[in-house]
Amino acid sequence: MDLNQYIDRKHDEHLKDLYELLRIPSVSAQSQHKADIERAATWVAERLRRVGLENVEVVPTKLHPLVYGESLQAPGKPTVLFYGHYDVQPPEPLDLWTSPPFEPTVRGGNLFGRGTADDKGQVHIHIRALDALHQAAGKLPINIKVLIEGEEEVGSESLWDYVQQNKSKLAAGALVVSDTSMLARGVPSITYGLRGLSYYELEITGPAQDLHSGVFGGAVPNPLTVLAELFAKLHDKNFRVAIPGFYDDVAPVSRSERKALAALPFKPKDFLKTVGAPALCGEKGYSVAEQVWCRPTLELNGIWGGYISEGAKTVIPAKAHAKFSTRLVPDQDPAKIARLVERHIRKLLPKTVTCKFQVLSTGKPWVAPYTHPFFEVAHNALEKGFGKRAVFIREGGSIPFVTQMYDTFKVPCVLLGFGLPDENAHAPDEHIALENYFGGIKAVANFYSGLAAL
Amino acid sequence: MDLNQYIDRKHDEHLKDLYELLRIPSVSAQSQHKADIERAATWVAERLRRVGLENVEVVPTKLHPLVYGESLQAPGKPTVLFYGHYDVQPPEPLDLWTSPPFEPTVRGGNLFGRGTADDKGQVHIHIRALDALHQAAGKLPINIKVLIEGEEEVGSESLWDYVQQNKSKLAAGALVVSDTSMLARGVPSITYGLRGLSYYELEITGPAQDLHSGVFGGAVPNPLTVLAELFAKLHDKNFRVAIPGFYDDVAPVSRSERKALAALPFKPKDFLKTVGAPALCGEKGYSVAEQVWCRPTLELNGIWGGYISEGAKTVIPAKAHAKFSTRLVPDQDPAKIARLVERHIRKLLPKTVTCKFQVLSTGKPWVAPYTHPFFEVAHNALEKGFGKRAVFIREGGSIPFVTQMYDTFKVPCVLLGFGLPDENAHAPDEHIALENYFGGIKAVANFYSGLAAL
Repeated sequence: MDLNQYIDRKHDEHLKDLYELLRIPSVSAQSQHKADIERAATWVAERLRRVGLENVEVVPTKLHPLVYGESLQAPGKPTVLFYGHYDVQPPEPLDLWTSPPFEPTVRGGNLFGRGTADDKGQVHIHIRALDALHQAAGKLPINIKVLIEGEEEVGSESLWDYVQQNKSKLAAGALVVSDTSMLARGVPSITYGLRGLSYYELEITGPAQDLHSGVFGGAVPNPLTVLAELFAKLHDKNFRVAIPGFYDDVAPVSRSERKALAALPFKPKDFLKTVGAPALCGEKGYSVAEQVWCRPTLELNGIWGGYISEGAKTVIPAKAHAKFSTRLVPDQDPAKIARLVERHIRKLLPKTVTCKFQVLSTGKPWVAPYTHPFFEVAHNALEKGFGKRAVFIREGGSIPFVTQMYDTFKVPCVLLGFGLPDENAHAPDEHIALENYFGGIKAVANFYSGLAAL
Repeated sequence: MDLNQYIDRKHDEHLKDLYELLRIPSVSAQSQHKADIERAATWVAERLRRVGLENVEVVPTKLHPLVYGESLQAPGKPTVLFYGHYDVQPPEPLDLWTSPPFEPTVRGGNLFGRGTADDKGQVHIHIRALDALHQAAGKLPINIKVLIEGEEEVGSESLWDYVQQNKSKLAAGALVVSDTSMLARGVPSITYGLRGLSYYELEITGPAQDLHSGVFGGAVPNPLTVLAELFAKLHDKNFRVAIPGFYDDVAPVSRSERKALAALPFKPKDFLKTVGAPALCGEKGYSVAEQVWCRPTLELNGIWGGYISEGAKTVIPAKAHAKFSTRLVPDQDPAKIARLVERHIRKLLPKTVTCKFQVLSTGKPWVAPYTHPFFEVAHNALEKGFGKRAVFIREGGSIPFVTQMYDTFKVPCVLLGFGLPDENAHAPDEHIALENYFGGIKAVANFYSGLAAL
């Protein structure tokens, strides 16, 4: 029986097992989920043992534990390090979910639930692929190291400490990651570029306490207005980020790459349909694919201050708050950008307010050539899993670990994404297409067995 | 025994009775407090009966009930209509209160609690003054009609319907209101001008659902940024409201009034200390008193959207929200201003978003001469209550009812305020100075008995 047939026969078992993982609300950003995080780590470790990995451990860290396991029973064969994360984004706003975020539900060929696409569903694809290979031969055909962390959604700090302290233990011929998307339904994709991310929080204080907007309004600084005026100054009319020096280190996209990107089956019309806004808007002079993959951004992620409940309250609040982030591209340096952002904001703010500026996390961008033979194996494996030729794409999201591993080990990073751009990662009604989940298991199993044949 | 002595002797009784009213969380903006609103109305009605008023009734309305009572036992004497409100502002943010908002607490000569200054404490001053007069003579020395509403903090709509349907019943020689502030500690004040208020809510929608800021950021409209850019355009660099036509109907402040205002013991340094901001800011060319009393404003009262909890979430939200208001001065028309505001906002918003614009409430400004003999009686009564000469001031807050009554009945409106500008009306740790509460009872009792002697 070939791998694909074996995987097809286990259809129900795959899903039942995945549901267990999805039901654990392992939200890394919210401290009330600490116990759920521990539970998810333990669950993953147990599964790694079941598929034949050895030296499996749940490694405590300063924040959330990471899980490691390995199988080194294939002398002479390639060694890969597979990385993923078991933590998920907060599920809020809860009222916008059709079915509860931590109760996996199938509708219209899609599996809904927080983490289905990002990243539990994709981690599970590898677990099930390894299971298939392990069942087929009693052992795995290549040497594999597996590292699954619990801080991807909050900056991966502990992971990086761990890597620094375990460089030889983690050494491998390639890094394999499934935490990205396919370009579109029916277009299996290998990602060769990611944006970096720095995330900030800003608190602006005007009055020492909330004031009556009638008694005081007209003579006092309103921090909400100050916040609005500040963020209005951070983009120019061409939607470029208006922070001095922001673009200084941005590597231009080569003519040949722009041509290759333009040839992809990327349809702005489909993109707009997914977005659902009246129209798109982005930096002048670039295609949509270039805007979201190859150009840096500054985005507000949350704002709050003053009275935000039912009805009316005539208040000038003491404080206004913003969470915002910059997506970065080669060769921008996150630390340098954070300094430029803070310096410019402090310069723009009027003397009528004070401000507290925090950098919550930073991560470097990554772009790399796809010339190593492993990419050819991956390309063929995707065709075996999906029955379609794969394409090479960049992505706008961030996986700081990929950059760090690439910089540290100088090995190929093979990013096989099985999500879709419209699957609401980080939003209500996150889901994964079941055809891509099952296709992913087949592709990954074929990839690992294909590496053994190199 | 004179009035002042009688009032002094009842010191503990006044407070004990006031505490009962303050403990009822009659928040008119929040529907979960509906039963508390009813309870407060019933409490007020019962007190009006106790001080000798007749035909006392709790009048149901479309929203919150109002309370009416009258005493018409003084033929040939003046008739006044006293107006106040028993509803209060929401207590949020709760964590900034030193003692619970609905548990009255005395600290440092001040009584703390939601409604102490605005307006339960001031309504209670009149109830206790009437009680003193009633106890002294077995009946009240003037004819008085009392109307206490429960929607002042949410627009007073039901009140106005009631007045329209009961014009002859409510007819009086003067309107008396205590819902304003003294200029400063030790400066008893009569208010002859109020600003109007229109309150708005805006919802801006970009994408159809929350989006991952990595996957989509750079090519889609971010409603938070759109909101910031919108509100940044609503003031110019001189802090004037940048809405075409906004100032068209603003009556200039006369040279003689500007001179009188400049002569008041109004100290910008004290004002800044109360505000507690690093510096003040307001419309160029006007004094602080003019900015907050005589000039119109546009203020953000609340903004929210995106991720506003702990940690980081890389989201571009579907929606951004703002609550904001315009304070108006003669001769601005609230309905006209609301139209100008909506039209300009719709014009400024880019085509990449949609918006929902709501007017939550409107109220007209009011300024009137203080030449009627009643003002002389009030001036003397304040001196009897406080031992200091009173001043005539304007105020920046809004009491739409005063304007409506003035326009409808063309009678003097005597605004005797016993709050202080730094008493945190509408904010955490609202309080009233006990010396002003007790001084107020004496002043009001002397005012009503003085009117009888006219």
